Amino acid sequence: MRNDQRTTDEIRPITITLDFIKHPEGSVLIQVGETKVICNASIEDRVPPFMRGQGKGWITAEYAMLPRATDQRNIRESSKGKVSGRTMEIQRLIGRALRAVVDLDKIGERTVWVDCDVIQADGGTRTASITGAFVAIVQAFGKLLENKTLEKMPVTDFLAATSVGVLPNGTEVLDLNYEEDSKALVDMNIVMTSAEEFVEIQGTGEEATFTYNQLQGMLQLATNGLLEIMEKQKETLGELANRIGETKR
Amino acid sequence: MRNDQRTTDEIRPITITLDFIKHPEGSVLIQVGETKVICNASIEDRVPPFMRGQGKGWITAEYAMLPRATDQRNIRESSKGKVSGRTMEIQRLIGRALRAVVDLDKIGERTVWVDCDVIQADGGTRTASITGAFVAIVQAFGKLLENKTLEKMPVTDFLAATSVGVLPNGTEVLDLNYEEDSKALVDMNIVMTSAEEFVEIQGTGEEATFTYNQLQGMLQLATNGLLEIMEKQKETLGELANRIGETKR
Amino acid sequence: MRNDQRTTDEIRPITITLDFIKHPEGSVLIQVGETKVICNASIEDRVPPFMRGQGKGWITAEYAMLPRATDQRNIRESSKGKVSGRTMEIQRLIGRALRAVVDLDKIGERTVWVDCDVIQADGGTRTASITGAFVAIVQAFGKLLENKTLEKMPVTDFLAATSVGVLPNGTEVLDLNYEEDSKALVDMNIVMTSAEEFVEIQGTGEEATFTYNQLQGMLQLATNGLLEIMEKQKETLGELANRIGETKR
Amino acid sequence: MRNDQRTTDEIRPITITLDFIKHPEGSVLIQVGETKVICNASIEDRVPPFMRGQGKGWITAEYAMLPRATDQRNIRESSKGKVSGRTMEIQRLIGRALRAVVDLDKIGERTVWVDCDVIQADGGTRTASITGAFVAIVQAFGKLLENKTLEKMPVTDFLAATSVGVLPNGTEVLDLNYEEDSKALVDMNIVMTSAEEFVEIQGTGEEATFTYNQLQGMLQLATNGLLEIMEKQKETLGELANRIGETKR
Amino acid sequence: MRNDQRTTDEIRPITITLDFIKHPEGSVLIQVGETKVICNASIEDRVPPFMRGQGKGWITAEYAMLPRATDQRNIRESSKGKVSGRTMEIQRLIGRALRAVVDLDKIGERTVWVDCDVIQADGGTRTASITGAFVAIVQAFGKLLENKTLEKMPVTDFLAATSVGVLPNGTEVLDLNYEEDSKALVDMNIVMTSAEEFVEIQGTGEEATFTYNQLQGMLQLATNGLLEIMEKQKETLGELANRIGETKR
Amino acid sequence: MRNDQRTTDEIRPITITLDFIKHPEGSVLIQVGETKVICNASIEDRVPPFMRGQGKGWITAEYAMLPRATDQRNIRESSKGKVSGRTMEIQRLIGRALRAVVDLDKIGERTVWVDCDVIQADGGTRTASITGAFVAIVQAFGKLLENKTLEKMPVTDFLAATSVGVLPNGTEVLDLNYEEDSKALVDMNIVMTSAEEFVEIQGTGEEATFTYNQLQGMLQLATNGLLEIMEKQKETLGELANRIGETKR
Repeated sequence: MRNDQRTTDEIRPITITLDFIKHPEGSVLIQVGETKVICNASIEDRVPPFMRGQGKGWITAEYAMLPRATDQRNIRESSKGKVSGRTMEIQRLIGRALRAVVDLDKIGERTVWVDCDVIQADGGTRTASITGAFVAIVQAFGKLLENKTLEKMPVTDFLAATSVGVLPNGTEVLDLNYEEDSKALVDMNIVMTSAEEFVEIQGTGEEATFTYNQLQGMLQLATNGLLEIMEKQKETLGELANRIGETKR
Repeated sequence: MRNDQRTTDEIRPITITLDFIKHPEGSVLIQVGETKVICNASIEDRVPPFMRGQGKGWITAEYAMLPRATDQRNIRESSKGKVSGRTMEIQRLIGRALRAVVDLDKIGERTVWVDCDVIQADGGTRTASITGAFVAIVQAFGKLLENKTLEKMPVTDFLAATSVGVLPNGTEVLDLNYEEDSKALVDMNIVMTSAEEFVEIQGTGEEATFTYNQLQGMLQLATNGLLEIMEKQKETLGELANRIGETKR
Repeated sequence: MRNDQRTTDEIRPITITLDFIKHPEGSVLIQVGETKVICNASIEDRVPPFMRGQGKGWITAEYAMLPRATDQRNIRESSKGKVSGRTMEIQRLIGRALRAVVDLDKIGERTVWVDCDVIQADGGTRTASITGAFVAIVQAFGKLLENKTLEKMPVTDFLAATSVGVLPNGTEVLDLNYEEDSKALVDMNIVMTSAEEFVEIQGTGEEATFTYNQLQGMLQLATNGLLEIMEKQKETLGELANRIGETKR
Repeated sequence: MRNDQRTTDEIRPITITLDFIKHPEGSVLIQVGETKVICNASIEDRVPPFMRGQGKGWITAEYAMLPRATDQRNIRESSKGKVSGRTMEIQRLIGRALRAVVDLDKIGERTVWVDCDVIQADGGTRTASITGAFVAIVQAFGKLLENKTLEKMPVTDFLAATSVGVLPNGTEVLDLNYEEDSKALVDMNIVMTSAEEFVEIQGTGEEATFTYNQLQGMLQLATNGLLEIMEKQKETLGELANRIGETKR
Repeated sequence: MRNDQRTTDEIRPITITLDFIKHPEGSVLIQVGETKVICNASIEDRVPPFMRGQGKGWITAEYAMLPRATDQRNIRESSKGKVSGRTMEIQRLIGRALRAVVDLDKIGERTVWVDCDVIQADGGTRTASITGAFVAIVQAFGKLLENKTLEKMPVTDFLAATSVGVLPNGTEVLDLNYEEDSKALVDMNIVMTSAEEFVEIQGTGEEATFTYNQLQGMLQLATNGLLEIMEKQKETLGELANRIGETKR
Repeated sequence: MRNDQRTTDEIRPITITLDFIKHPEGSVLIQVGETKVICNASIEDRVPPFMRGQGKGWITAEYAMLPRATDQRNIRESSKGKVSGRTMEIQRLIGRALRAVVDLDKIGERTVWVDCDVIQADGGTRTASITGAFVAIVQAFGKLLENKTLEKMPVTDFLAATSVGVLPNGTEVLDLNYEEDSKALVDMNIVMTSAEEFVEIQGTGEEATFTYNQLQGMLQLATNGLLEIMEKQKETLGELANRIGETKR
C-alpha cells in the first residue's frame, strides 16, 4: 500500500480545466492529485533569430513555481536574478517534448510560447506540465484553425508524461507524489505518444542504481498510465481531439 | 456611462476565495472584475539581518505577473535576470501598506512573506493585491492564534486599496479597469483603513496635471468604494474579522 | 521649534547654480539646505525604440547618490550589479514629473536624459532633484532655441517639488531634513506647477496612518512652499523664464 | 558503414592520460576520438552549507568548453554573465552520476569538486566527461588513502558513460561523433556501472520518437560499449583499480 | 605649441579644495585643467574577510564618472549591471598606488574606502584621482590623529600621479588633456613619491611602439611635473603635511 | 641563487606546440616553466559594430584560467556571473599588445579572437599568453595567406612578453615564477618587439616603490630575455617567420 492508498500501478486523479485564463490562445489548469499547474500557450507571429527565413515555426517552454507552491517558501528566481539549473532542465524538456509531436513545417514562421506555472506542488510537476501543455497547444492551434490561419491541425499525435520510480522497499510504482519522490531510489520521467512511442526517457538513480529488469517494469507501468492519461486529454479536447494527426492522413 | 456599463462611483464585482493554495499559512484568490491575483502569506520564524535582536517582526511583499496575465505576453523577470522598476515599486507599496496595520512589536521575530501573483490582469492589480493580501495575512495570523503561538490578533484595523482617476472627458471615476487606466489623465491609488485614515496616496498625472478640486472628488469616490470593499473582506474572514483591533482594545 | 530652528512652514535655503558642469546642454547644482544635487540634462537626437516614428520626444531620468553622500557609506549600485527599488522609484518619479510640463509633441524625436546625482544628502533628495532638473531642462531647451533647432520653448509651466510630513508630536511640517524625515510618521512628496495644479502626490504612512484633515494641512504647507521655490527657479533662469508656456499662448 | 568507417557497435579509440595537470588531487586528459576533456578532481575539506553537520561528503561537478573547442567559436559563459541551460544540465548529470558510485558517508565532511573542461569537441563531451571524471576522482581518493586521511577507497563500483542513437536511416549506433549526433533522430546517454546497473538513462527524440524495440537495441549497444570503456579505466588506474568496491567487501 | 598653449613640460593649473563634502572623513575636489574629481575617503572599522585577524588595515578605491562628465553621455554602469574593464583597471590602480605610501600595519583593522567620482572629464582622470585621493586619505587619517584613534600619521611619503605621452608629431609631452590623449601614440601614467621613487609605471602604445630614448624623455617630464604637483598637495594640507613620514622617523 | 636554481637573468624553459587544438585557425600550447596556456586564434569575417564600414580589422583577446590551474581551486567566473577586474585587465593588455604589431588596415573587416586559457599556472600567465598568442595569430594569418584571402602577412614585427621584478633581498630578476612573484616587491611586465621597441610597460610596487636605477636594471634584463624568447617563436613558426614585416618592406 502506498502512502495515499493507491496501488502501485494507479495514477492520481487528473482534472484538466480548459480556458482557465482569458488572454492566452490556449489555457489550461491541470491538477494531478495535489499538483496544480497553469499551462498557457501563446502564439507569436515570428520565430527566434536563428530560425528566420526557413518558413517553419518553433515551440519554446518556460516553467516556474510560485514561491509557496511548496511546503517551504522558495526564493523567486527573479529576485535571485537567475534561473536555476533545475528550471532550465525542465523547460528544455517541456519544449523538446512538445516539438516531437508538432509538424513545425506546417505552422509558418510562428513561435508557440508555453508557460507552465506551478501554483501548488506535490510531485510530478514537470510531467503534469507536459500533459497540460499538450492540451493548451492543441487549443491554441484550434484558434488558428478557427480563424483560418491554419488549414490543418499541425499536432501529429497525443503526448503525455508521467513518472515512475523505485521505492526504498524495492517496489516499482507509477506517478509518484512528493513524499514518494523524495524517498525514491530511482526516479524516471517518461514522455510518450498515443502510438506508444517514446519521446523522452529520463531515468536517474540518485545515490543508487537500477537493473535492466527494474527498467522494464517501470516502462510497463508508465505505458499503461500514460494511455489512461491520454484518454483524459482526449475527453477534455472534445471535437478538437479528432483533428490530431490530420496532417499525416 | 463607462466602458463596462458601471456608474462613475461603482466598484467592480469582488470575490475573495480563502484557502486557494494548500501550503501557505494564508492563501487567497482575489478577483476584482477580470483581475485575478493569488495572495499567499507565509510565516517565517526569523527576521532579516537588519532587524535581528529587536524583538519585533517584519512584513515584506513580492509581486509578479504570469507572462500571459496580460493581452500581450511579457518576458519573465527571471529570464531578464532582473526585477523591473514597476515591480519593485509595487512590492514596496504592498509591504509598506500592510505594515501600517500590523503591530509588528506583537508578532515576535517573525517575517511574513506576502506573495501576490497576478494570474489575469485587467487593471488595478496592485490595489487588488493589497486588498487580497490583507485577508491572507489575517488568515495567517489566525493560524498562529489557533496554535497558541500568538495570543492576540496583531492586525489593528481593516485595510483595502482601490484606484481612482480622471478620464479624458474629465470625469472622475472609481476602480479603473485596464482600458480606462490606459487612457486616464490621472491615476491615483488609495490605501485606507476602516477608520477612514489614509495609509498611502499615490496620485500621478502622466503628461497631465490635476486640480485641488479633482483631488477632493477622487478622495471621496475612493473612500466610499473602500468601505464597500472592506465589507467584502469582513464577510470572507467570518469569525476572524472580529479579532482585528483586539491588541488596541 | 524644529531641529534646525525653522518654523513649520519654512523651507530651507535654496541655491541653484547654473552651468555647473561644462559638457551637458543643461547643468545645475541645486542646494536645498545641506542637500546638494548635480542635475544635468543631455539632449540626444533620437528616441527609445518604443517611440520611434511618432514624431514626438521623450524625457527620461536617472538618479544616483555618491557612496558617501550620506553619513554611512553606501555600496555603489554598479558594484552590486543592480539598481535598487528605491532608486528606480525615484527616477521613474522624476521622469514622469518633468514630462507633465513639457510638450513632447513639440521637441521632435529627441530624448532628454536627466541625470540627478546627489553628492551630499540631508533629506529631500528626490524633491531637490525634480526642482533642479526642471531648471536644467529649461536651460537645455534654451540651447535648442538659441541654435534655432526649436522655435518655441516646449516647457509649458514651472514645476517644483518639496516634501511635507507629520512629526512624531503630530505637527505638520514643510521640507523635512534627514533627521526629521527619519522620524516622521507620514512622509509626502508633492510635485506642483505654478498654476497650482498637482503633478504628483505621494503620501505614505510608514507603520502609521493619517487623517483627511492632516492631508489638507500638508497640501496647504506644500503649496505655499512650492510657490516660493518656483520664484527661485524663475530668478535663476532669468530671460529664459519668460519663454515658459509660450507654446500655449 | 559510418562516416568514420566504424561499425555500428564500435566505440571510438579512447586514451586516458593521468596527472595531466599538476595541482589537482586527481587530473586526467581523456580523449574519445577527437573529443578531448580535461577532468580535474579537487578535494575541499568542507561541505556546502545545506550538508553541514551530517558527517557525510558531497561531490559536485562543473563543465565548460573552451570557446574554440568547436568548429565555430562560442561566446564564453563568463562574458555572457550566465551559465547556459545546456551547461547546467550537463554538470548536474555528471555530479549525480559520480555520487551514485561513491559512499558519501565514508569520505567525511569533504567536497569533491570535479571540473570537466572540454578543450576539443567532436560529440559525446558529456559522456567522455563522466568517464574521465570517474578516473580523476578515484585518483583523488587515492591521494587520501596514501596520506592516511581515508582508510578505504569510498568508490563502490566502476562507472562510465557513452551515447547511443538512431541515425536518419534507422540504424542504431554506438558512441556518436559530432556529425552523427547532429543528424540523429534519437540521442541517448547511458551511465552504467561494471555491475551492469544503470545510473542514468537520458533518451531524447528531437522532433522524433522511438519505439520499444529501438530502445532495447540501444541499451544492448551501450552495455557492450561501456564494459569495453571500463576496461580502459581499469588499465589506466592500475593498482588503484583493485581497491574499488572495498567498502562493500 | 600644444592645443591649449602649454609648453611640452607644463602641467595644467591644479586646484585642490578640502572639505568639499561634509560627511566623509576626508573630502577633496581636485581640478586639473578642466578635469574635476570628487575624492572622498571613508574610514570603516573593519577589514575585508581575507584580512581579518592580521592586525593590519586595508585601502580600497572605487572610481566612477557621472554619465555626462564627458562630451557624449555614457550609460551608467549601475544600469548596465556591471563595471567595465576600464573602471576596474583604474580602481585597482588607485588602491594599489595609495597602499604603497601607507603603513598598513599602523592603522589597525580598518578599511579606508576611497571614492573618486569624476564630475567633469578632460583627460587624466585616473591620475587626478590618485593625486586628489592622496590628499583625502591624509585628511581622513588626520581625523583619526585628532580624536586620538591613531598616534602617528601612517602615510609615509607624498604621492602624486600624472600622464606623459608622445604626440603624433613625435613630441613628448606632460599632462595630456583629452584631445591630446585621444591622438597620442603613446600614453603613460606615472605614480611617484616625493622621494622620486616610482610606485607605478603604465606605458602603452596603442597600435604603436616607443623607444628606450622616448621612455627616458617621458620619465624626465613626469618627474618634474610630479614634484610640482606634490608642492600643491603640501600647500593644501598645511600643518598636516608635516606629519607625513613620521612613522619612519 | 633563485628558488628554482636559475640565475637572475635566466628565463625558464619555453616550449611552443603548434596545432594544439584542431578547430582554430591558429592554435598553440605554450609552456613557460610550469605555466601552460592554450592560445587559440579564431578569424571572424566581421568587425564589432563600432568599427563597421572603415575597411579595417580588429583584434580582441579573452583570458581565463581553469579553476584548478592554481594550487587552490578558484570559482569559475561563469558561476560568479562576472569577469574579475584582474581578468579584464589582462585581456585588455593582450589585445592591445597584439594590435601594436598588426597592420589592421591590411586585414579587411575581420576580427581575430584570441583566447588564452591557462590550464596550469606558475606565474607569468599574462606574459606567456602574449608570447603564445603572437604565434597563434601569425599561424592564423598564415591560413589566410594560404587560401589567398590575404596577399601579405599583416604582422609587422615579432612580439613577446616577460616579467621582471625585485625580490625582497633587493635583487632584480627575470621571468618570475609564482613563488617569486608572490613575494616580489616590484612586479613589471614588459611587452617588446624584435626591434627592441616597447609596446607596453606595466611596473607596480605593491606596498613598495622602486628607484630609477632599479627600473633601468629591470629593463635591461627584460630586453635580453625577450630577444631569447623571440628566437623560440621564430623557430616554432619556421617558414612563416620570414613573412613577418613584409607589408613594410
